[in-house]
Amino acid sequence: MIETVMMAIKERRSIRNYADTDVPEKALQAILEAVQWTPSWANTQCWEVVVVKDPKIKEQIHAAVPASNPGSKSILKAPVLIALCAKLGTSGYYKGLVTTKFGDWFMFDLGLATQSLCLAAHALGLGTVVLGLYEHDKVNAALNLPEGVDNVCLIPLGYPEKVSGAPKRKNLDEFVHYDTF
Amino acid sequence: MIETVMMAIKERRSIRNYADTDVPEKALQAILEAVQWTPSWANTQCWEVVVVKDPKIKEQIHAAVPASNPGSKSILKAPVLIALCAKLGTSGYYKGLVTTKFGDWFMFDLGLATQSLCLAAHALGLGTVVLGLYEHDKVNAALNLPEGVDNVCLIPLGYPEKVSGAPKRKNLDEFVHYDTF
Repeated sequence: MIETVMMAIKERRSIRNYADTDVPEKALQAILEAVQWTPSWANTQCWEVVVVKDPKIKEQIHAAVPASNPGSKSILKAPVLIALCAKLGTSGYYKGLVTTKFGDWFMFDLGLATQSLCLAAHALGLGTVVLGLYEHDKVNAALNLPEGVDNVCLIPLGYPEKVSGAPKRKNLDEFVHYDTF
Repeated sequence: MIETVMMAIKERRSIRNYADTDVPEKALQAILEAVQWTPSWANTQCWEVVVVKDPKIKEQIHAAVPASNPGSKSILKAPVLIALCAKLGTSGYYKGLVTTKFGDWFMFDLGLATQSLCLAAHALGLGTVVLGLYEHDKVNAALNLPEGVDNVCLIPLGYPEKVSGAPKRKNLDEFVHYDTF
């Protein structure tokens, strides 16, 4: 199992150019199940997923992303756009109160879920890119999110048209320490 | 590839009971490489990993975890304790300024890295559990972290002695929405 899992982790690239090919329903289901089975703070599962295919909603979302964001065009180009959202005030909380100095842990749990989603997509031959730089409140409005639910990132999903090289990673000795920093 | 990746995602459980068996160095290297190849905000790779094996440091860290945390004992029992830390002020920033309403994105990127780590460990037959509920500043001190680096979670790592059942997950229709919420 390790060879395949490491291959998925190491070979998955951010995809910003998508082919005009639909995402099969079965593949989408598997990707949603990858989110479903992600671990979370005390199993709070604070994620809410909006699967956007409607071109009008995509246009509204695209208008919230600055053209300087290299993933901007992929919002319109990818056949599916996943808007990953969080129910606030659950992860990291106990009886309505925050339990750590980091407050709400939704960002951590959505990070966990995003990696599950991206790895499952890659394993299906599908590309993803995670966008975080845009006007979130405009996207909240386009998605008609209720109070207490916040969109955090946008993940275009589709078959890659072009796969770019891997951005350089730090060497292990640049970020790994033993016993103390 | 999808069958194996989905199996890793669905079958990985939180492990709180560890066998007295060391983690092979080769397995640890693979797990660190899983972190290394995780995507991050503009490839900022804000993670810092402290691999703790020294019983004295483990004792200091254990003292920062409340006994009510169900993972508390695993800090001492697991042969390896991974302290996942973040360099602050990089992820989500551009030229020293935050770029989104969510401020520093280190929690998101550490979530991504944690899922890579947990899946790689599971694929190697190793167990993990992610602890977030403890006195972080005490752990920062035990790890001798410099200013600007913060410990976020603790991940005991070792061969499972006991594997528990899966906590119940929401059905897809409880968190998946189409086009709008």
